[in-house]
Amino acid sequence: MSIAEIERYLHSSVPLCRAMGVSVREASPARVRLAAPLAPNLNPHASVFGGSAVAIAILAAWTLLTVRERAAGYGAGLIIQRSSMRYERPITADFEALCELTDEARYARFRALLERRGRARITLTAWLQQDTVRAASFEGDFVGLRARERPR
Amino acid sequence: MSIAEIERYLHSSVPLCRAMGVSVREASPARVRLAAPLAPNLNPHASVFGGSAVAIAILAAWTLLTVRERAAGYGAGLIIQRSSMRYERPITADFEALCELTDEARYARFRALLERRGRARITLTAWLQQDTVRAASFEGDFVGLRARERPR
Repeated sequence: MSIAEIERYLHSSVPLCRAMGVSVREASPARVRLAAPLAPNLNPHASVFGGSAVAIAILAAWTLLTVRERAAGYGAGLIIQRSSMRYERPITADFEALCELTDEARYARFRALLERRGRARITLTAWLQQDTVRAASFEGDFVGLRARERPR
Repeated sequence: MSIAEIERYLHSSVPLCRAMGVSVREASPARVRLAAPLAPNLNPHASVFGGSAVAIAILAAWTLLTVRERAAGYGAGLIIQRSSMRYERPITADFEALCELTDEARYARFRALLERRGRARITLTAWLQQDTVRAASFEGDFVGLRARERPR
């Protein structure tokens, strides 16, 4: 999937993503970088709403797992089970969300369990930045469900 | 503030709130109940996007604190510092977010510290439900800033 295809997929399957103005800047199995403008994501203090911040972090992590599944020819359903966010400084301009996964052994364990049991969990971290300065830290647990066990 | 005034304030100061279709059902110092339709909050599995779920929980908690501050004639700025969400079951229809705060001693300690130091923290919990069945649990730390110390 090209970056443009991933962006179209996100916008069509997650309406909030379009409302937030999210664009895809990078999307590889190792790293996803999403960007969003300030205006549609404002809070009453003229900075980024905490709900927008965690939503784009979830999208970055979910996109990374989706890119990995598709690149490998798999098709697990990926559902978030837990999210936590620490807001470290207010974001007062356009911003980015980044998620990286370079620990291949960890992903291989997730895949192996998913194949064996039809269900497995993986924890990803992500962060938000404004002008390359880190502004928030995210951690999320995602559950992968083998394609044929995906009625949810 | 009436329920209609609170809803107008949320929609005008948090654009994402409007995009999510959030409406205010109850708003007292003890309890806030917000509602949202499924359609603008969908994920690719035809259930509620995890980002929408945590965003409406943050809004419910933030609204409760704002209602309390205004009802008491105070005007602290309220900023989220940490959020965590546990997704317990997929939400497949219109849903609600509820936040309650009935521990007056805890709120009194927060107010006292805010007055004395210009800054204080309070933890609130909230939950999401579909047809009165609980679907997700939220916890958030909010920092209150005395009005005159609110440059953020």
